[in-house]
Amino acid sequence: MRARRTGMPYDAGFPLSTGPGSMPHLVIELTENTRLTCSQEELLDEANAALLSSGQFQEPDIKSRCVTLSTYRQGTENVDRAFVHATLQILDGREQAVRKELGQLVCNAISEMVRPGASAQSVQVSVNVVEMERATYSKQIIGG
Amino acid sequence: MRARRTGMPYDAGFPLSTGPGSMPHLVIELTENTRLTCSQEELLDEANAALLSSGQFQEPDIKSRCVTLSTYRQGTENVDRAFVHATLQILDGREQAVRKELGQLVCNAISEMVRPGASAQSVQVSVNVVEMERATYSKQIIGG
Amino acid sequence: MRARRTGMPYDAGFPLSTGPGSMPHLVIELTENTRLTCSQEELLDEANAALLSSGQFQEPDIKSRCVTLSTYRQGTENVDRAFVHATLQILDGREQAVRKELGQLVCNAISEMVRPGASAQSVQVSVNVVEMERATYSKQIIGG
Repeated sequence: MRARRTGMPYDAGFPLSTGPGSMPHLVIELTENTRLTCSQEELLDEANAALLSSGQFQEPDIKSRCVTLSTYRQGTENVDRAFVHATLQILDGREQAVRKELGQLVCNAISEMVRPGASAQSVQVSVNVVEMERATYSKQIIGG
Repeated sequence: MRARRTGMPYDAGFPLSTGPGSMPHLVIELTENTRLTCSQEELLDEANAALLSSGQFQEPDIKSRCVTLSTYRQGTENVDRAFVHATLQILDGREQAVRKELGQLVCNAISEMVRPGASAQSVQVSVNVVEMERATYSKQIIGG
Repeated sequence: MRARRTGMPYDAGFPLSTGPGSMPHLVIELTENTRLTCSQEELLDEANAALLSSGQFQEPDIKSRCVTLSTYRQGTENVDRAFVHATLQILDGREQAVRKELGQLVCNAISEMVRPGASAQSVQVSVNVVEMERATYSKQIIGG
């Protein structure tokens, strides 16, 4: 399922991008017992589409990755548990409501693709939105 | 060895949790030459027990992982060195003294399990406590 | 090529280090299609030399790692793209101009070692400078 446009306004009067190649950076960590209804590549496709739909970013700049966790531990009890934790890094300057909505877009995109295990396994999905300091951010584009 | 209860008060009057599944998230990076006195899984057990003993978190919400670093470099000289670096991510709102104590709990739990190599290898253990923005944090629990 | 000394003043009157083993921590993520002109180990050598040349850090404390991304997605279109994203974590208290220069040192060191693919592939190189909270940072040195 493709993400819908959310219609968040991109404030053209504020230089929220620092030009091509700036961001966002999305990191999705998954414990290896997490069961998806699609491949990790398709999960990233959905997440990127959701982020693009926000109107906040340029298409080539949305950079996402999945990291599978093979050594993990949730709580202290002997229970089958799984988690998916995403960190969305964006340059600072967006309003809190926009940051919140971006996080929810990613959380929804992931949650739609996660299914609980055959047993009573529950999967915690969380998204942390982190602002990167624009004033000290560096970037360069090689080739292309 | 199990971590002892530290008796840090959990302020029930302040909604420090955002409900089930919120946090903490602990990431422990280890250079692959690090020698532990236990398995990485047992290291995570100890770290989670230490975090639970703080009284700050719900048992099922403590989510930890080890990441082994195979490509790393410490300094510029040709010396045998190792490091373990943990990042503890918690929702914002706790006092600095509590954050500091949480970092020390993790640092102690790790340090007890690390041993220097046979030679003069030294191992740097460090813990960075990071606050996640509560107002924009998203989460969802699937199944369970 | 070795990085040159940049001559940034280290303010000896301000305890910018918290003693041995404190930082910096550099994480370089590379999509696995990124083509370097050297090995990842040599890339880390160059980055560490650049950081040391700043005069801001002690030699043994510069801790760097490469993380190769095997599951990644850039944008939503079907185009050959690559990215390298570095996160430089330093203890707080340095001026913005110093932080910016540290990020640029790393960005330059990386960019010199990245080459575009045989086709029209472009590679986005970016560096995010993150301050770690000094007041709650924990560390310990084992052996040595």
